[in-house]
Amino acid sequence: MSSIIKPRVLKGFRDFLPENELERKSITTKLEKIFENFGFVPIDTPALEYTEVLLGKGGGETDKQVYNFRDSGKRDVSMRFDLTVPFARYISQHLDELYLPFKRYHIAKVWRGENTQRGRYREFTQCDFDIVGVDSPSSDFEIMLMMQNSLSALDVSDVTIRFSHRGIFNRMLETLSLSDKTVEVLRIVDKIGKIGEVKVVELLEEITSTNNAVKILDFIKPGKNFRETLDKMIFLSGGESEDTKRLEEIYSYILENGIEKMFLLDPSITRGLDYYTGLVYETFLNELPEIGSVCSGGRYNNLASLYTKTELPGVGASIGLDRLLAGLEVLGKKSNNKSLTQVLIMVLDDKLIGHYHKLATQMRKKDINVEVFPIKKKIPQQFKYAENKTIPFVVFCGEDEAKKSQINLKNISTKENYDGLTINEACELILK
Amino acid sequence: MSSIIKPRVLKGFRDFLPENELERKSITTKLEKIFENFGFVPIDTPALEYTEVLLGKGGGETDKQVYNFRDSGKRDVSMRFDLTVPFARYISQHLDELYLPFKRYHIAKVWRGENTQRGRYREFTQCDFDIVGVDSPSSDFEIMLMMQNSLSALDVSDVTIRFSHRGIFNRMLETLSLSDKTVEVLRIVDKIGKIGEVKVVELLEEITSTNNAVKILDFIKPGKNFRETLDKMIFLSGGESEDTKRLEEIYSYILENGIEKMFLLDPSITRGLDYYTGLVYETFLNELPEIGSVCSGGRYNNLASLYTKTELPGVGASIGLDRLLAGLEVLGKKSNNKSLTQVLIMVLDDKLIGHYHKLATQMRKKDINVEVFPIKKKIPQQFKYAENKTIPFVVFCGEDEAKKSQINLKNISTKENYDGLTINEACELILK
Repeated sequence: MSSIIKPRVLKGFRDFLPENELERKSITTKLEKIFENFGFVPIDTPALEYTEVLLGKGGGETDKQVYNFRDSGKRDVSMRFDLTVPFARYISQHLDELYLPFKRYHIAKVWRGENTQRGRYREFTQCDFDIVGVDSPSSDFEIMLMMQNSLSALDVSDVTIRFSHRGIFNRMLETLSLSDKTVEVLRIVDKIGKIGEVKVVELLEEITSTNNAVKILDFIKPGKNFRETLDKMIFLSGGESEDTKRLEEIYSYILENGIEKMFLLDPSITRGLDYYTGLVYETFLNELPEIGSVCSGGRYNNLASLYTKTELPGVGASIGLDRLLAGLEVLGKKSNNKSLTQVLIMVLDDKLIGHYHKLATQMRKKDINVEVFPIKKKIPQQFKYAENKTIPFVVFCGEDEAKKSQINLKNISTKENYDGLTINEACELILK
Repeated sequence: MSSIIKPRVLKGFRDFLPENELERKSITTKLEKIFENFGFVPIDTPALEYTEVLLGKGGGETDKQVYNFRDSGKRDVSMRFDLTVPFARYISQHLDELYLPFKRYHIAKVWRGENTQRGRYREFTQCDFDIVGVDSPSSDFEIMLMMQNSLSALDVSDVTIRFSHRGIFNRMLETLSLSDKTVEVLRIVDKIGKIGEVKVVELLEEITSTNNAVKILDFIKPGKNFRETLDKMIFLSGGESEDTKRLEEIYSYILENGIEKMFLLDPSITRGLDYYTGLVYETFLNELPEIGSVCSGGRYNNLASLYTKTELPGVGASIGLDRLLAGLEVLGKKSNNKSLTQVLIMVLDDKLIGHYHKLATQMRKKDINVEVFPIKKKIPQQFKYAENKTIPFVVFCGEDEAKKSQINLKNISTKENYDGLTINEACELILK
């Protein structure tokens, strides 16, 4: 006999039990519905790509988080670590087969060999949606509207979508002659939620004057309302410009659509990355802001400069499914269905098995999820199975009932019995 | 300026354009619906696992098809190459959290570094469904019923599900004293569809007597009907037994459910693998048998002997999504939707953009997929976009209409115009 191998998964990787996978599927189905509602189309790309394509020339040596190896044909390959880089490659490669503006969504797993932490995994799911090929306030706004609609569809309406404009932030840094330190300032400002104002000023003072540090802090603190915040941003960035006008336009759409309660102009939102050039967004659960942004994104000037000379401006956002699920669980909004089965047909008599399957087919035609217990066992064992799968109804049918084309139905939770029903009567009761 | 990296994918890997991804999603959604209809629950497992877990001890050196490497923590890891091995590991690991019998489905990508051929890819999707923890004719039959229901749901009803029993085949080999050559015989018999009877006898003669070769050929040729085939199988395998009784029982269920036209007892079906021990199935499109089986499976004695001492008999099948899609395309059953959008709201006036988004929201509440063109452009360019995405309706709304809360609707294919509609009137027309 060969020895047993211990069944286990890699650190940072997860199995999904049925109740968790059902929950994930229910969420992605709702998101897909919203994305399609807004006219976005799905795409998919390979899990594995040339390392050069994903990381750029020479990137292979540097990025330790990427799962990178040589395949049996000695190609240097990597597993995708996000959905943005593959999308940039995809749109460059297929521009002739596509059209602009192009609105796509992509829900898929990505892999990063990061240090694992609570809620951080090495395999996780991203849900990205982007509008590429156009730079307009309408598309900036549409992404915000989709963020709001997506979260509402998941029964998470109590959220704040915080937004700002990276162009205004950059102009503010220019007035302070700090453009060459943009990356450092961004990294510090991005931490304000975690480390607080005092610490931010201290860190800023390490790279610039106290006067500048205080001005930056002043800039990133929201005012009492949209107008006041924007006026301060205009003042501290050297006056009105295209970027401030863009914010005004977008805010007028927000007002016209009556959704201003969920949106907050917050100049501390910068997304930390040099990548963004225009609008930036982050979304926080009001009851659970500490888990961080569950949906973030922004506008970028040029998505695919690595692969094509065609300029492709875009705007988009990404929902962090794993973080969102963790949040829903804490808020008690996680469903705990072990299955979607509505009826279990109990096996009372081996000779009736063909008949049981026929009954099941008839009920399935009424769009009811039905299963036949797969073998004759003692009734309590069959009941236990229904309980394990949270199945609400069981059907009993013996020889007498079969002859009369009848069944007996039991509602497990109320313990009510309905005897001598026709199939149609039973289906009506179940669907109620 | 950095030089451009040529956008490309690895050999055997594919991008999915929106029309293809929509088609795949539509198919997997229909399959999931059927699986849930039968009470099956979804699970998921990691893309990456310990090589030892996937390939057994020492398997790492031998299997060249598997994408195998050392991660940055020096662990020997592999990408999953099927969904059966991870399922065996999963059920062994989580037996305490689950229950038996356990009916799961799993739709996911798998990776194999095979030589690429027409319709063969290095990344492809499997759709597996299995009933584990029970050995009963009812569950053997249920899998067959699901195969039939799944294909019908995909509008592929003109199929033949060929089935047989590996136990009877093994008994036949025993009567010829050929049990020690089971694997070789299976490999030859499995090729009959491709190479024909004469060649099969020739190959068999290389490993046994002409007399035996002819007897094997006699065994694997179906008779005129179920009864005649089964009688011959009984005769050539040394008499009736549990296995022949099982076939009779299953056929009685098939008859009782009135689906005998789609099922054929075909003793040449063996699935080639030593793995199966009971029922075996393959499914062929009647109009396109040459593409091979689109849904295959069978019964195995012991799923998870590598990981646990608990005996887990099971039965299941797998739909080859990529092969099935190729078949649907040849049969002209592939849909060619570029999107699911039903309405494009044209941008006539920049000042109305907030209003356009409000209109879109109102229509989306009626479950209509609507998009707002993201920027003001010339009308023909906006029309071209609707054409590219096969959007059937466009909405025009200028300042006058906005003031009167009206819109003008155009059906692109019929060229009909409906002017001065309320939103509700427009929605009714679109939903018709």
